[in-house]
Amino acid sequence: MKDFATRRSADQQRRTLAALAATPGWAAVCAARDDIDDHVVAAILEAAGALTDEVLAPLDRVADQQGCRIGAGRVQVPQAYHAAFRAVAEGGWMGLDLPQDFGGSGLPITVQAAAGQIFDGGCPAFNMVTGASRAGAVLLAERAPADVAALWVPDLIAGRRSTTICISEPGAGSDVGRISTRAVQGEDGVWRVTGQKIWISFGDHDLTPVIGHCLLARTGEGAGTRGLSLFLVPSRREDGSENGVTALRLEEKMGLHGSPTCVMEFAGAEAVLLGEPERGLVQLFTMIELMRLQTGCQGLGAASRACDIAESYAEERLQGGAPTEPPVAIARHPDVRRQLGAMRGATEVLRVAVLEIACAMDLARQPAEDDAAALVAYLLPLIKAFGAETGFDVVNAGIQVLGGAGYTAEWPLEQMLRDSRVLAIYEGTTGMQGIDFLERQLIRNRAGFDAFIRRAGAGGEGDGAVVIARFAALADVLLSCPDADKRLMAADDWLRAGWLALTCWLAPRVASYDAPARDHAMAQMKARFAVHEAAVHAALA
Amino acid sequence: MKDFATRRSADQQRRTLAALAATPGWAAVCAARDDIDDHVVAAILEAAGALTDEVLAPLDRVADQQGCRIGAGRVQVPQAYHAAFRAVAEGGWMGLDLPQDFGGSGLPITVQAAAGQIFDGGCPAFNMVTGASRAGAVLLAERAPADVAALWVPDLIAGRRSTTICISEPGAGSDVGRISTRAVQGEDGVWRVTGQKIWISFGDHDLTPVIGHCLLARTGEGAGTRGLSLFLVPSRREDGSENGVTALRLEEKMGLHGSPTCVMEFAGAEAVLLGEPERGLVQLFTMIELMRLQTGCQGLGAASRACDIAESYAEERLQGGAPTEPPVAIARHPDVRRQLGAMRGATEVLRVAVLEIACAMDLARQPAEDDAAALVAYLLPLIKAFGAETGFDVVNAGIQVLGGAGYTAEWPLEQMLRDSRVLAIYEGTTGMQGIDFLERQLIRNRAGFDAFIRRAGAGGEGDGAVVIARFAALADVLLSCPDADKRLMAADDWLRAGWLALTCWLAPRVASYDAPARDHAMAQMKARFAVHEAAVHAALA
Repeated sequence: MKDFATRRSADQQRRTLAALAATPGWAAVCAARDDIDDHVVAAILEAAGALTDEVLAPLDRVADQQGCRIGAGRVQVPQAYHAAFRAVAEGGWMGLDLPQDFGGSGLPITVQAAAGQIFDGGCPAFNMVTGASRAGAVLLAERAPADVAALWVPDLIAGRRSTTICISEPGAGSDVGRISTRAVQGEDGVWRVTGQKIWISFGDHDLTPVIGHCLLARTGEGAGTRGLSLFLVPSRREDGSENGVTALRLEEKMGLHGSPTCVMEFAGAEAVLLGEPERGLVQLFTMIELMRLQTGCQGLGAASRACDIAESYAEERLQGGAPTEPPVAIARHPDVRRQLGAMRGATEVLRVAVLEIACAMDLARQPAEDDAAALVAYLLPLIKAFGAETGFDVVNAGIQVLGGAGYTAEWPLEQMLRDSRVLAIYEGTTGMQGIDFLERQLIRNRAGFDAFIRRAGAGGEGDGAVVIARFAALADVLLSCPDADKRLMAADDWLRAGWLALTCWLAPRVASYDAPARDHAMAQMKARFAVHEAAVHAALA
Repeated sequence: MKDFATRRSADQQRRTLAALAATPGWAAVCAARDDIDDHVVAAILEAAGALTDEVLAPLDRVADQQGCRIGAGRVQVPQAYHAAFRAVAEGGWMGLDLPQDFGGSGLPITVQAAAGQIFDGGCPAFNMVTGASRAGAVLLAERAPADVAALWVPDLIAGRRSTTICISEPGAGSDVGRISTRAVQGEDGVWRVTGQKIWISFGDHDLTPVIGHCLLARTGEGAGTRGLSLFLVPSRREDGSENGVTALRLEEKMGLHGSPTCVMEFAGAEAVLLGEPERGLVQLFTMIELMRLQTGCQGLGAASRACDIAESYAEERLQGGAPTEPPVAIARHPDVRRQLGAMRGATEVLRVAVLEIACAMDLARQPAEDDAAALVAYLLPLIKAFGAETGFDVVNAGIQVLGGAGYTAEWPLEQMLRDSRVLAIYEGTTGMQGIDFLERQLIRNRAGFDAFIRRAGAGGEGDGAVVIARFAALADVLLSCPDADKRLMAADDWLRAGWLALTCWLAPRVASYDAPARDHAMAQMKARFAVHEAAVHAALA
């Protein structure tokens, strides 16, 4: 692999700090506490960059080529993961935003997200296990009985245990209401879980001796999601004995080979009820929310890295120009400039968007903030869907800049395309995000939409203000349509319209540190918006 | 792999026959000869379908998983290829459109393209060798000295020899003018070629004892493409001895593993001059044109197959609906309907477009046709670029319909995405097609553009007519811009505008056999066109 294809996270750090400085919510987060300022964050991102460049990035190709193995119900990850997992835990990265009571650093989620997208540009497959464990730790700190939380959360932060999230089943993918895994409470008071779960990332592995599965199972008779409760199902009991949890099979995937995707069997496995019974799905949203944010970070990490690679390649690859003159760097060719500009514009909008939602998550924890939580709910499907899409699209565009070279394994982009294809599928497909964004965040409860308009609609001018106003008008059209099927036919275009409106709001932040990227992100904005606006009208007609 | 993921080429055949019937050029092709009518073509496509279903399709996964091997300068293809190669040759498929004098069937290119897209939906990697040999046979029939043609062309048709096309070099990819491979004529009158060529598909293999490389090499002192001549360089001399042609290396690629991509070394290899010296690139266009048409067919084959798979899956996969009722087929969900409709619309437009250019190629051979050749030149970059893009995009959309399943190797779509990613790169990247479409087909010589407008602009109404009129106006804007750099910045959007204008012209043909697909292809057409129109204006500003 060429030198300039190795990670250079310095540019990522610089851009992220500049984007944070341009995010008003970040100043509000900092104002509310005295342990954090720009110097502290710069130091944290520098350390994250060093860990990425030295430890995580070198894993990436190994993860793809070695993959994971299964035998006798146990999964082996690439050997090189073990040292990396220790390094991440010992560096305190698993507990960055976990409460200090449990051994975490208690830092804002924003700091975690800013560091996380750097990690995710290093080795996304490996980061699937740390991401799920971090999110699991937050969930357990919030919902587990005190003794269970005291046992698990510090161990998760220290990398002595890990967690997964178990939702899908063979007959229940996006359709969570059809989950058939059951939990029954015995006369001994112990809950026991029986059923099969699929698509479980790191459902088994050999990085920690115990794995806790955060799992939805049916306890009540209520139909759909109502009868679902939330459990922690450890792979082994505290005495070290087996607990009826087995990995049956690994999926053979297009990419992300270094993240074992397991079919898990639970056969009367002892479980701890988390929170209240029959409130499982609502409670699990703590974890789902963090993992959807991580998908945004993964897309940003992939897009940033693809920009770095393509920009560097285009500066070094000489081709074209007058045949009697020396060839010129392809970065001088107009069409390559156009490609690189579009890639960077999309990437930087995603960067400021990820930081905006992370800050909103932090602010939502502060008592004075009245609409930050609503804004988070509104932004989350956008961040999930366009983190995924931007990551894949920018990597794909990067391959095109490299041409034939990009299609070969000499460069990391082909792996990155295979790895990033799953982003639009897991943690809720783009289709599910569109339905959420339309039906939950507008039709049923428009608080988040209103929170967005309050921020985005104030004081703008130019194309951005026009688009935001037309977006608000389009919401009224949807709100006045009583036909759910017609609305759902418009969901994808409404989601895309929402991303463009968000772009109009946030593009000025990009301009503060990369004006050409802002220009690319805003190019033909009114015309692009008009496509989705027209599609929404057509669907409702 | 599930049953309905195996090839079902019957639907492909039906759609292709219906699309042919809606193509006016096809009637003109048939009118000029007495050996072909709809019944003959139906029988040919049925036979192509049977060969695809029984022989080619079963190779596809084997091609991906076994790949090709290299040792001591020789390449081994998957063992199963040998029988398939014989079956294709013995069925007469390699000579379908080759002259009868050489043992071909002398049928129209249109018939070849119609059958070819069915084959390309079977095993695209395998079809790389038959496609290059067919195109090489046409070139040699046209340009080789009579004795060489008499020796090679019948053998190519019979599968006893094969050909490649050798253009790129390490320092000359898209920039053909920097080719440094040299050919020198000795005092014995024999030309000898020395240099290195890269990205050579099937540059070596064990399907035929001799491989002929159709190769550009520098003979004159003229700069750029002027000093290039065209040669046939056999891998072995007629006495069976080695000819200084070696495969140095195979590229490790994201996909198309069953097509060995070779770095080829020519060390004083004896060569036959084809046609006139220093007219190499122009003469090679016979072959380039056929291979760009094949890229369109490959995209169509992939897109058709992806539609079949996604449509079948969506009818069988049950998810969602009221939790108290049995789950419904996901094909009933509005957002899945939207996805399937968009896939089918894009696919059918490509189908009628591929048949249109193939008919124009046939008509261009008829003396009475004055502008068919110009139309072919105009359409070729569109067919190449949007064959590639439609193939990749529709496969990608198919993965999304399948969700997690689509990301696994249980279904062919993940391989199809990896395989089809190269379509936008080889045979001239999309960037090169954009430059061709703008600079050659509009600025330097607008005969092709005029031929398009004569056909597309006459008698239309509705959105399509509006878009075609605006496209013509946009051409005037580009023609009046003297700044080549600004124009080139607009090339990609001009190409996309051209595809939409072509869609507006051809969509009524789709309506003749699949009205919903036409509607999807034309959805929001004016708004979509406006995006590229605005981008062209912005680039020129």
